Amino acid sequence: MLENIKDPSRLKGLSVSEKQALAGEIRDKIIDTVSRNGGHLASNLGAVELTIALHSVLSVPRDKLIFDVGHQCYAHKLLTGRYERFGTLRKAGGVSGFPRRDESEYDEVSSGHASDSVSLALGMARARELKNEDYNIALVLGDGALTGGMVYEALNDAGQCRAKMLIVLNDNEMSISPNVGSLARHLTHMRQSGGYRGLKQTVKKLIYKLPKGGKSTEKLFTRLKNAVKALFVSDQLFESLGIEYLGPIDGHDIAEMERVFSRALTYEMPVLVHVVTRKGKGYPPAEATPEAFHGVGPFDKLTGKTKNASIEPSCGKAVSDWLIEHAKADKRICAVSAAMLDGTGLAAFKAEYPDRCFDVGIAEGHAAGMTAGMAINGLKPYLALYSTFMQRAYDQINADICLNRAPVTLLVDRSGLNGADGETHQGVFDTSLLRGLPELTVTAPANMGELRRMLDLSLLADGPFAIKYPKCLPDDGNDPVFDLGEWEEEKRGKDACIISYGKMLETAREAAGKLVTSGIDCGIVNARFIKPLDEALLSRVFSVYKRLFVLEDSVRTGSLGEEIATLAPEGASVDLLCVPDRYIPAGTVAEQQRMCGLDAGSVADRIKEGKRG
Amino acid sequence: MLENIKDPSRLKGLSVSEKQALAGEIRDKIIDTVSRNGGHLASNLGAVELTIALHSVLSVPRDKLIFDVGHQCYAHKLLTGRYERFGTLRKAGGVSGFPRRDESEYDEVSSGHASDSVSLALGMARARELKNEDYNIALVLGDGALTGGMVYEALNDAGQCRAKMLIVLNDNEMSISPNVGSLARHLTHMRQSGGYRGLKQTVKKLIYKLPKGGKSTEKLFTRLKNAVKALFVSDQLFESLGIEYLGPIDGHDIAEMERVFSRALTYEMPVLVHVVTRKGKGYPPAEATPEAFHGVGPFDKLTGKTKNASIEPSCGKAVSDWLIEHAKADKRICAVSAAMLDGTGLAAFKAEYPDRCFDVGIAEGHAAGMTAGMAINGLKPYLALYSTFMQRAYDQINADICLNRAPVTLLVDRSGLNGADGETHQGVFDTSLLRGLPELTVTAPANMGELRRMLDLSLLADGPFAIKYPKCLPDDGNDPVFDLGEWEEEKRGKDACIISYGKMLETAREAAGKLVTSGIDCGIVNARFIKPLDEALLSRVFSVYKRLFVLEDSVRTGSLGEEIATLAPEGASVDLLCVPDRYIPAGTVAEQQRMCGLDAGSVADRIKEGKRG
Repeated sequence: MLENIKDPSRLKGLSVSEKQALAGEIRDKIIDTVSRNGGHLASNLGAVELTIALHSVLSVPRDKLIFDVGHQCYAHKLLTGRYERFGTLRKAGGVSGFPRRDESEYDEVSSGHASDSVSLALGMARARELKNEDYNIALVLGDGALTGGMVYEALNDAGQCRAKMLIVLNDNEMSISPNVGSLARHLTHMRQSGGYRGLKQTVKKLIYKLPKGGKSTEKLFTRLKNAVKALFVSDQLFESLGIEYLGPIDGHDIAEMERVFSRALTYEMPVLVHVVTRKGKGYPPAEATPEAFHGVGPFDKLTGKTKNASIEPSCGKAVSDWLIEHAKADKRICAVSAAMLDGTGLAAFKAEYPDRCFDVGIAEGHAAGMTAGMAINGLKPYLALYSTFMQRAYDQINADICLNRAPVTLLVDRSGLNGADGETHQGVFDTSLLRGLPELTVTAPANMGELRRMLDLSLLADGPFAIKYPKCLPDDGNDPVFDLGEWEEEKRGKDACIISYGKMLETAREAAGKLVTSGIDCGIVNARFIKPLDEALLSRVFSVYKRLFVLEDSVRTGSLGEEIATLAPEGASVDLLCVPDRYIPAGTVAEQQRMCGLDAGSVADRIKEGKRG
Repeated sequence: MLENIKDPSRLKGLSVSEKQALAGEIRDKIIDTVSRNGGHLASNLGAVELTIALHSVLSVPRDKLIFDVGHQCYAHKLLTGRYERFGTLRKAGGVSGFPRRDESEYDEVSSGHASDSVSLALGMARARELKNEDYNIALVLGDGALTGGMVYEALNDAGQCRAKMLIVLNDNEMSISPNVGSLARHLTHMRQSGGYRGLKQTVKKLIYKLPKGGKSTEKLFTRLKNAVKALFVSDQLFESLGIEYLGPIDGHDIAEMERVFSRALTYEMPVLVHVVTRKGKGYPPAEATPEAFHGVGPFDKLTGKTKNASIEPSCGKAVSDWLIEHAKADKRICAVSAAMLDGTGLAAFKAEYPDRCFDVGIAEGHAAGMTAGMAINGLKPYLALYSTFMQRAYDQINADICLNRAPVTLLVDRSGLNGADGETHQGVFDTSLLRGLPELTVTAPANMGELRRMLDLSLLADGPFAIKYPKCLPDDGNDPVFDLGEWEEEKRGKDACIISYGKMLETAREAAGKLVTSGIDCGIVNARFIKPLDEALLSRVFSVYKRLFVLEDSVRTGSLGEEIATLAPEGASVDLLCVPDRYIPAGTVAEQQRMCGLDAGSVADRIKEGKRG
């Protein structure tokens, strides 16, 4: 059935039981594809019926449908003409794992970061009003994304202007890690009480049991009843913000969802429908451990066991090991994550030191501000964020952490090119963002030994300190000792020198190896401190080499290479090998390096060309 | 009395009437000082009694007191040993207009941006718990700051962990412009109903009027009464988030506030006390038009009339004039501000086109996401933010606007050095932040004619476009015509060339003038497009000059100068004249330029030195 659905209008002719069968087909296709390509499994399996129900009541692309984050859009993609190409999911040139405007007219916005969908929808709704157009705007928002402040900013605005839109709260009781915060508790309460059902029944019983009084009593009673009803059948939180609340309803019951969505679309104001789904629904291994199937690599479909796991050790694990090792002696150490305890490796630290590890939800700005407060009050907080999500906290890192010289250590995970998640998940802006900040030391270890040493140094720092690293780094078991700010001349060459740091140092070595056969003797410098520079070593480098190449997986603006170029003496040339000025789509990291001219072959070619030139 | 209060412990011995007299003295001192130095008047006058009451129940610095934003900390400064130096308010080397850690042990954190105080306080509270310490942590939060999502992220976290803290909601019914959003409506409702007073009385009346029923009815009724009471006497919004709510109370009644604050400090959880104050309280001109007295320059104390107003025309006015002029013909034009309709000049546009101008509250992230949605749906939104507050929206500008190639025009106001507000209000990071973003055109007009031309060009742009400008620019009445990306060689020289843009171009001209007497003939290039560069003109410049100086009021990382340095051919030197790598404190803009070596004299000296060197 699925392969014949070329566009979602075909859903309108199907019965509920046909749609249920279709849901099964979609699920099979998702499990099959993700087991081969990797991807977001649990969230997509949870949203299958929800997506079918939405496409049954909406008429896209005339109506607009937005997925918050977009990591639950696979069913949507399968229903909007991308079934045949779906095998290319997350591959270079293939179907993106997230909505992409340039991929389909059914993808309204390109997305990848959490909590922005209400803002986008409100903007679209205001455009609709100003242009006197008439169609529905709907969005799907996870309960995790609801912990992000941007949603609240948008609800505050939408609730006041009463812009007509349908907000589907897809509540699966977890974002990526189990959800946190008092809001999660509030939602749990809503789920369990079925909309304060117990209390509603109390009122109802009272109404029938009370003896009839006089007219004025009756009038008073009616007023009270209405007041109580208004309070109890809706949700106070959303109501306070001017948002109509309906629910909770079963997010795997297509007929019930269609009924409630249709009713919601008749309201001339923002309506939130609270839909309860099960993450990983329909695939037992994912239902059992949904965190493990949030973002996965290829796995064995029968057992759920991961295939071809990375053989390189995880930086997150190294960080957590280090934290556990040092937390016993140093009571100041604590750690903070923004809904990424698993991804950043902090879960292990949390298991050992539950009182000293804080998950604040998808709330990077708050996380940064809070760690500033912790540090000001004498702790040594380690704040672990993915590089791309750290972008949300730029102002707080600047104004709360750096301005206060608060000794917070930023653990900038997934720095650099990140593979299959594509454009929105690259960690290529951090070098620029962090190097521009006063008071901040910025480092990028090239292997686990350097990472451990950076952590040691961070403990001694009396100001803010950032350590940026990719998911994995090699570990040769060595623990190098170097001082704060000390670079290393790893190899002396005669003809040229590559300055690099972090994971790209491997590429530098490989490129230098390739150049040997071309008769080019290339030196290598490890610039593991990218702010401040090792000026002594740099001036030695300038005195030895006339041709320098700075290699980094970072955008050019604000890169280390730009600063080195401004410092070069007369007669020295500095070439920048960095991420080009465009968004880098999905692919393997190796493919992305090639797209950017940052693979060893391209680097060697650039250096050879330079020689000819 | 005030001059004898060297530290706030002295308040404990005073009677309420003495404190009231003290409030009058504080008010006089604030009015007198701000009338001479400029500053935040209305917010500080509103918070005098509140500050006295807080210092009466707290024991700082043992207890911790944080002011959100910090633009209401003058009374605090006067009560914590800074009375004698208060005449230096907002002057170079003087008392800062915001809390500064390096200024006093009573200033817990340096601040200046909104909505971060709950995060900071929660971090401090968690440090207190981990260190087994025992003291109070209190913060003062404006109702405007409550529109920022970061507060909600922090409340969600604080409500769950039940960290003991006192949150004083200083509700004056406006942030900077009259407050917006459904939350403001909610607070108004709370104020007017006195905590749902009407409904509470209904319940009470019912209780007395109803005939007594049987035992089970009684029991049911008691349950209902308690449920209703629990719902009605507290606030649903904060309650949903796990925050205890007390109020609203009169924020000018010292005795009442002391009673409620003392009670709140006995709770072992986060408590929010809703305090209603009047902005500008005690100074009739400020009470009448508090917006006009939010941030003011020197004024006549008797009349409230501004002295020495800038003679340069305001960019905000030019922008609003342009919007009004073009909005009639181009129905796509609309404008968005984040609680800054007055500051950015958009208020005039709002008056003409109320339906096409949106103030979303202190919610820059939402504002950016929303304009992306508007642009995707066919509008041409103009998003006006102060440069320093735009930092809050970095990720949304990146992931929502630029990734979607949404034709949003960013109006980056107060770009560059900004004078008396100091460290937290400098617009010196925007060049770096914006130049790093793919798809974005970044411009900096040097005068009003160029600003108008940039606006014309933005209307034609099919992707995102940024125009950054200071508060004022000169207007010679000319309207230059130039193409997208076109620089201008303003003056040809023989010895050196200064490349600059925006307001700094004036300084470049002045410096070039000074150099004539030293026999140095200095060319000037107007690089009004700072991304992408005018490569054709730049290569002509490189062919003419061997010595280039790039002058900009921006941090060095990611500056235009850094990019130009990487492009310089062999034999050409490029010197960077930019903002040094530290936070620049208060002073006049001219003083700050001197602190940074960016005044005409310093620039001329640098160029002369270069010649000698």
